[in-house]
Amino acid sequence: MLIPNRSNIELAYQSVRRYAHCTPALTSQTINSILGCEVFFKCENFQKVGAFKFRGASNAVFNLSNKLAAKGVCTHSSGNHAAALALAAAIRGIPSYIVMPSNAPSIKRRAVEGYGAKIFTCEPTQEAREKELEKVRIETGATFIHPYENFEVICGQGTASLELLDEIEDLQILITPVGGGGLFSGTLIYAKETNPNIKVYAGEPQNADDAFRSLRDGTLYPSVNPNTIADGLRTSLCPLTLTIIQKYANGILTVSEESIVKAMRLVWERMKIIIEPSSAVPVAAIMQNREVFKDKRVGVIISGGNVDVENLPF
Amino acid sequence: MLIPNRSNIELAYQSVRRYAHCTPALTSQTINSILGCEVFFKCENFQKVGAFKFRGASNAVFNLSNKLAAKGVCTHSSGNHAAALALAAAIRGIPSYIVMPSNAPSIKRRAVEGYGAKIFTCEPTQEAREKELEKVRIETGATFIHPYENFEVICGQGTASLELLDEIEDLQILITPVGGGGLFSGTLIYAKETNPNIKVYAGEPQNADDAFRSLRDGTLYPSVNPNTIADGLRTSLCPLTLTIIQKYANGILTVSEESIVKAMRLVWERMKIIIEPSSAVPVAAIMQNREVFKDKRVGVIISGGNVDVENLPF
Repeated sequence: MLIPNRSNIELAYQSVRRYAHCTPALTSQTINSILGCEVFFKCENFQKVGAFKFRGASNAVFNLSNKLAAKGVCTHSSGNHAAALALAAAIRGIPSYIVMPSNAPSIKRRAVEGYGAKIFTCEPTQEAREKELEKVRIETGATFIHPYENFEVICGQGTASLELLDEIEDLQILITPVGGGGLFSGTLIYAKETNPNIKVYAGEPQNADDAFRSLRDGTLYPSVNPNTIADGLRTSLCPLTLTIIQKYANGILTVSEESIVKAMRLVWERMKIIIEPSSAVPVAAIMQNREVFKDKRVGVIISGGNVDVENLPF
Repeated sequence: MLIPNRSNIELAYQSVRRYAHCTPALTSQTINSILGCEVFFKCENFQKVGAFKFRGASNAVFNLSNKLAAKGVCTHSSGNHAAALALAAAIRGIPSYIVMPSNAPSIKRRAVEGYGAKIFTCEPTQEAREKELEKVRIETGATFIHPYENFEVICGQGTASLELLDEIEDLQILITPVGGGGLFSGTLIYAKETNPNIKVYAGEPQNADDAFRSLRDGTLYPSVNPNTIADGLRTSLCPLTLTIIQKYANGILTVSEESIVKAMRLVWERMKIIIEPSSAVPVAAIMQNREVFKDKRVGVIISGGNVDVENLPF
């Protein structure tokens, strides 16, 4: 198992920076006083396709040989990785084939269609996604770009914290959401190999706490159609991301559904930015673990902003 | 009637910059391709109290003599000016008294209360607001800071375009919403006296088109409880703002309620920022007048982001 290091992420950034936005790090005095710490929101909701996933997808797509690229790329994803891969493929001028679970938000389906991808729908389980994808891959000859069990994808995701640590000095804690662990892994590698003293946590919904349990027990637990509003975090870790998380993580903080909605609303109302439920999970983790973050300089990776505005939880 | 000029706005900025945020100018390639022009969104929704109004209010409050300031400030406002004045007064450490119409959004009422102001409620007409305010003013001895019929307030509002024109080169058009005309006036003065070739428009709801009719006929029309979702634009012009608008404006573009909701949703979904309905009015004006803006570099002042997330139009 080849594990990325900080240099791999720096190299990835040479490619990613050509296609992705360098997103702003926003702050709010009101939020700081409510959360009891100094928070820098790395706004990947302003990223292309509205999510950090474009970093990993573009790194993977532009690292393919011309021969492989010609047959296109394929994946399964609940939404943001799908849109990211479809756009990266469109920019490179190659076809993309996307397997989406039937419960993916409609705004995400429309986005994927808009980038010209061909969509295949399946049941919302890890097993069904993988089975359908294998069929598509064999039929088309496309290269499978896994949403997180992929060296280049993890390197790409790590470039968000590269930008954040480059811009904001003296951050003491970073926190991301964790679903499959791609963003968390990339963040861990870059941050810990840049500054071993920095603490890096992930927030995870209690109702989809497979990563928390996997880290605690040192074994992979599958996530079977978990009931959480954080639709981007319904996936489970893979051997690669678990290995990285075991090596570097300071902890995974689980949060209630109620606190996710509360944190989402807080950011909407006070920051005036649209974040999706998955992005509210780290904010909820700060709210539920005040002593860990008290008076610290904290970087929060806001993973995305793709929300169906006709179907809000408040 | 003393009319501000560009130098007055530059002087105001020396005061405003100490209290207000220099807000970012955001862009989106997708929005550009949908609107058919290159748009720079001046994000006053990220301003303190979530609206440009803090610029004018803080300029007015910090220009008061110590003797006048000691008795406090008072005003009537549908919301954002109220919050802005309350916060500016709190920063200076003086009392504030706010008359609010009974139909003001609850989020705006709560914000005003949160800054420590004393609130008085009245019927949602210009006449009722003025009558109640006069009563409060006499009782308290506080200085009335009008939301827009005020030299210092207009100068403060003009500092948003000062920052925008300073940051973004070669803007060809500016557009703001128009309610009472404070933001539009300040923008007109600064922009036209900086670059006589720049075009400056306002967007206004068809259902509250008193400014459009006042400019067309050269006379002031009162706005009587107009039925528009753009709650910040239900007020009417005053002699001072009409005079400035007559001198400099390239036009007022009126838009339907349906297009306001459509534009608001476009910005929410594509820019991932929260804007209030009033801020969507200029965007709707671009959508309904494509030939005016085609291929131009356009600055849009996003006036605010105070929306009741429990009561959305979509």
